[in-house]
Amino acid sequence: MPERDSRYARRLEEILAHATEVFNDKGYEGASMRDLSRATGMSLAGLYYYFESKEKLLYLIQKHTFETIIARLRERLSAARDPEQRIRIFIQNHLEYFLANQKGMKVLTHEDEALKDKYAEEVRALKREYYRVCLGIVEEFLKLRGNGRLVRSGAAKQRSESIEVRGDITPRIAVLSLFGMMNWIYTWHNPRIDADAGALAQQMGDIFLDGIRNQQRAAGSAARK
Amino acid sequence: MPERDSRYARRLEEILAHATEVFNDKGYEGASMRDLSRATGMSLAGLYYYFESKEKLLYLIQKHTFETIIARLRERLSAARDPEQRIRIFIQNHLEYFLANQKGMKVLTHEDEALKDKYAEEVRALKREYYRVCLGIVEEFLKLRGNGRLVRSGAAKQRSESIEVRGDITPRIAVLSLFGMMNWIYTWHNPRIDADAGALAQQMGDIFLDGIRNQQRAAGSAARK
Repeated sequence: MPERDSRYARRLEEILAHATEVFNDKGYEGASMRDLSRATGMSLAGLYYYFESKEKLLYLIQKHTFETIIARLRERLSAARDPEQRIRIFIQNHLEYFLANQKGMKVLTHEDEALKDKYAEEVRALKREYYRVCLGIVEEFLKLRGNGRLVRSGAAKQRSESIEVRGDITPRIAVLSLFGMMNWIYTWHNPRIDADAGALAQQMGDIFLDGIRNQQRAAGSAARK
Repeated sequence: MPERDSRYARRLEEILAHATEVFNDKGYEGASMRDLSRATGMSLAGLYYYFESKEKLLYLIQKHTFETIIARLRERLSAARDPEQRIRIFIQNHLEYFLANQKGMKVLTHEDEALKDKYAEEVRALKREYYRVCLGIVEEFLKLRGNGRLVRSGAAKQRSESIEVRGDITPRIAVLSLFGMMNWIYTWHNPRIDADAGALAQQMGDIFLDGIRNQQRAAGSAARK
């Protein structure tokens, strides 16, 4: 990357970080271009010239977030073949990024529906890509562990009356449960008392992996109703 | 409950449900008392007379939600002694309530910081109570399973270099991971294709319980780095 490009990239990243702060503090609806100008140190005219609108800024924040996290993930995954290790890499990568960008996480979550049309579609595609990488790794893990039935989601597969439902994992629900575990941290994580990304990834990885490892194992539990 | 009281309670619940819709659609900041008057079918004067402000309405929504979910939970728990069953009851109760009130869940999450002072303090106390019920059940479960070290949270207990960290469960992180799994559903659950509360509780219960059941079990895994 030529020197000028990388300076541009750094400056863009700074601007997006300031804009994230503003959206975090005032909400997307409540934030004005004037607030954004003040926070980024750009003139109002410059802000309109380079970024057009606050929607464009929100779009760039979301796009930048998912492109960055996916690029880092792909690089780290390229070195690992073992599915368990790949799940752990996914978790570590996700938590590292979002613990360092807790405000960004809140903005992404709360302004999920603020983008429209082309912007919304583009961000949706990135999120879908990210979700599918995770789904692929989890399915791989489940297949290798020989977990009996890989159940595709669908209302048709409701809980039956029998205990045999034990052992059915819907990869979609497993993956979305994992995202929930990880993403919810923005509501509670306190860096002064809580574990850092590495230790958190360890514990969440343990819970998630044991949780989906072999559902059959516990089928004998008398406590189940 | 006398007839008049129960009619009042029903009407209050209706009003809060309509207000939830408004906050969901427009955001708390974006919603006006006029919007709330239109949606609830109360006159603007009546709304001010009975509810004072939109902050009061948001407070009542949050209070009503947590009081209801805690009351139902306590009733259901009173019949169960087994810790595994109690965790399953907790999950089922939570998912049932929030799948039936998905919009409320979003409002609670997004407007978590909108309340101030006394209102905020009262809702925080209810949330703390709810969190502690869950923490108590999970700790009970972990103790009964004889899981070696019950690690209290704290930055001091970071990941050590050795593999022996396996088996350390921080109940706080376990519980907050469970809340994440459950609460994140408001971002993805589609009643047309996804499992209902019962089937979802089953799967999330399986993942969570196996996940914390006995971390030692998998310590031999060669795949771990």
